[in-house]
Amino acid sequence: MSDAVLTAGDRLAGRLLERLAEATTDAPGITRVAYGPGERFAHDLVRAEGEKLGAAARIDAAGNLYLTLKGRSPDLPAIVIGSHLDSVAHGGNFDGAAGVVAGLAVMAELLEQNIQLPRDLIVLATRAEEAVWFPLSYPGSQAALGLLDPQALEAKRSDSGRTLADHMREEGFDPDAVRRGVPGIDTDKIAVFVEAHIEQGPRLVAAEAPVGIVTGIAGGFRYVDAKCLGAYAHSGAEPRFARHDAVLGFADLVAGLEAEWDALEREGLEATITFGRVQSDPTQHGGSRVLGELGFTLDVRSAEAVVLERIEARLRAILAEVGGKRGVTFETGPRFTWEPATMSPALIAKLDRAATELQMRAPHVPSGAGHDAATFAGAGIPTAMLFVRNENGSHNPHEAMEIADLDQAIRLLLRFVTDFDTDQP
Amino acid sequence: MSDAVLTAGDRLAGRLLERLAEATTDAPGITRVAYGPGERFAHDLVRAEGEKLGAAARIDAAGNLYLTLKGRSPDLPAIVIGSHLDSVAHGGNFDGAAGVVAGLAVMAELLEQNIQLPRDLIVLATRAEEAVWFPLSYPGSQAALGLLDPQALEAKRSDSGRTLADHMREEGFDPDAVRRGVPGIDTDKIAVFVEAHIEQGPRLVAAEAPVGIVTGIAGGFRYVDAKCLGAYAHSGAEPRFARHDAVLGFADLVAGLEAEWDALEREGLEATITFGRVQSDPTQHGGSRVLGELGFTLDVRSAEAVVLERIEARLRAILAEVGGKRGVTFETGPRFTWEPATMSPALIAKLDRAATELQMRAPHVPSGAGHDAATFAGAGIPTAMLFVRNENGSHNPHEAMEIADLDQAIRLLLRFVTDFDTDQP
Repeated sequence: MSDAVLTAGDRLAGRLLERLAEATTDAPGITRVAYGPGERFAHDLVRAEGEKLGAAARIDAAGNLYLTLKGRSPDLPAIVIGSHLDSVAHGGNFDGAAGVVAGLAVMAELLEQNIQLPRDLIVLATRAEEAVWFPLSYPGSQAALGLLDPQALEAKRSDSGRTLADHMREEGFDPDAVRRGVPGIDTDKIAVFVEAHIEQGPRLVAAEAPVGIVTGIAGGFRYVDAKCLGAYAHSGAEPRFARHDAVLGFADLVAGLEAEWDALEREGLEATITFGRVQSDPTQHGGSRVLGELGFTLDVRSAEAVVLERIEARLRAILAEVGGKRGVTFETGPRFTWEPATMSPALIAKLDRAATELQMRAPHVPSGAGHDAATFAGAGIPTAMLFVRNENGSHNPHEAMEIADLDQAIRLLLRFVTDFDTDQP
Repeated sequence: MSDAVLTAGDRLAGRLLERLAEATTDAPGITRVAYGPGERFAHDLVRAEGEKLGAAARIDAAGNLYLTLKGRSPDLPAIVIGSHLDSVAHGGNFDGAAGVVAGLAVMAELLEQNIQLPRDLIVLATRAEEAVWFPLSYPGSQAALGLLDPQALEAKRSDSGRTLADHMREEGFDPDAVRRGVPGIDTDKIAVFVEAHIEQGPRLVAAEAPVGIVTGIAGGFRYVDAKCLGAYAHSGAEPRFARHDAVLGFADLVAGLEAEWDALEREGLEATITFGRVQSDPTQHGGSRVLGELGFTLDVRSAEAVVLERIEARLRAILAEVGGKRGVTFETGPRFTWEPATMSPALIAKLDRAATELQMRAPHVPSGAGHDAATFAGAGIPTAMLFVRNENGSHNPHEAMEIADLDQAIRLLLRFVTDFDTDQP
């Protein structure tokens, strides 16, 4: 077989991504709300393209889409390539969609080259991966495996205030089956799950490599509705000794957690600590106010559970110290956690070999962001991920993946699937 | 005369403040928008009560209300007692209104006790003192003296987006006359301006004194639309080395200015430094974001111009340092300034003597907040201010002035006006 130059796959990936961008533009950027019209359009488009290629389409109770290209031995567990089709509001076109399109492109190349794999190849387009819509970890892929906590169906979508169950039902799916744990696909029917995704950081740009092989997905915890509470007062009239200034309390917290991050780095431990929202109350704030309340989110991530525990412990100590020093209190509110996930070392080795054969630079990189792949790894399925080089991060309109780099990921996936049953370690 | 116990004045103050609170309730607290319905109601109420007492009512081109009780020699410059009737949104009932009502109560007591003063007594209710509505320093009292910068008429009200001129016209006043500098009252017709106002800080509560005599009004500067600009990124994916985190830049600024405040205090210099609004962009922020922008206000006050200049210089140095260290930039936006104002030492001495005669504790206190009195002092009119003890600050629904303390201010004002032409230093 030839995979030096992509033909059908190449044209298909670029074309589909362009159509998606046109249809879901929401300047600046694109918006594909989970269980909303943009995600629906993307699923319909991918389904139609898959069926055009000759794949059999199936949609599960949660709305996940499975496009199956028959292999020679349909009883063997399948190779599943998947990612999501929703986006954040005013996000970029490639986050999620590039991985699904890459799977379709692999199918198209196989067909163009008249290759039938030993086992089924399934392209899986999941639902609702972006936690900005529902405060949940990958509910679409969790439901695909019948693992979604029934409680999660009551989670409310951030824009509509309506539940996940409502939105599933509105889109024509079956939340009751999801609640009963009916899987969209049995785990023992999956030989391997592989996700391609744009990198959301700058490591591949810095390494000048088009593609990276992911070593693991960080876990983390997030406080989505934390507050520093002090006392409102008049900026001119309230003397310093009498102030309970929420801004000073918050600034101390930022400095305290940054000192902890410094300490972790000195010990060679990796983590990220981020305040993604900082917001005084618009009905209370103003130029002449000492702020009595400052709301914020805190997002902490690490591939190592012990590091997460250490940061949580330090956080508690800082909140107590700052509270005493500043005369403020902190309410951390609901805690949202997700587990770290390890990628399969055997699959990483297979991807390394495929890259070597293609003379492609594909360095190992960690994933600080969460991905559907974590669901499959967490369920004990051998799982791998590829990152595609991308400038300017993700979750913003300035994502800048080159289609030429996505082509490299498609070539690597193609080699991976064709070698899967012949390749020996 | 007897001023040991208030009679008419007492009942009038409590009754008017109750009616005001009922009519302008906007839970939590009250709202009397400058040139809005709450301020209009308050002006109408005060006018009706003044006329009931026999005072002559007059309204100037900007809508300021003058209630004149004739003295024996109308050619002598008048004693003017005044304050404002607007409030912040969801503010307290006493900020401003207590001072106007105190002036009416003094009138009522004079009439009840059949005292005619040597000179006219004018109760002045100004407009639009709260800078939250128009980003201006006391446009109402400035217009009363014919001193309002014509540019100020184009300032936009924060809630409506419409100009001060528009709002004046809508309420039936004459912005063109204001623009031409037609005064509501000639400065040479004013012997003295006295403002009573609730204290907006806790000094009188700490001193256990019902009333304080103000030594001076702080000046200051404010940046109402400042921003720390970094780069948006994904919290999990963006490694620390690549971040331009606006939150860290802002926290450094807070810490830097606090260190400057420490240095000022060590040198015995007074100032306040306050961030009254801190706000990430709701269309951009979220749990998984590194923030690329954080908006804030910065309010700096001191009675000494040299201290204000020193803080401004230090601010510029900090912004440059933090920008370099964090890879962020700062845009400070429009700068709004107001001058410090000195209260008349001769009037302070008169008030001291009146308090001594009444065996009333009335300590000297600074005013960190701005007041209409600063306009009159700035115009060279001998000016004094009384503060009334008040818990929980102002600009919030929890103001807690006791009417009994306001009565003490009314007693002191009454003694001040009756002694004004007889009292010898």
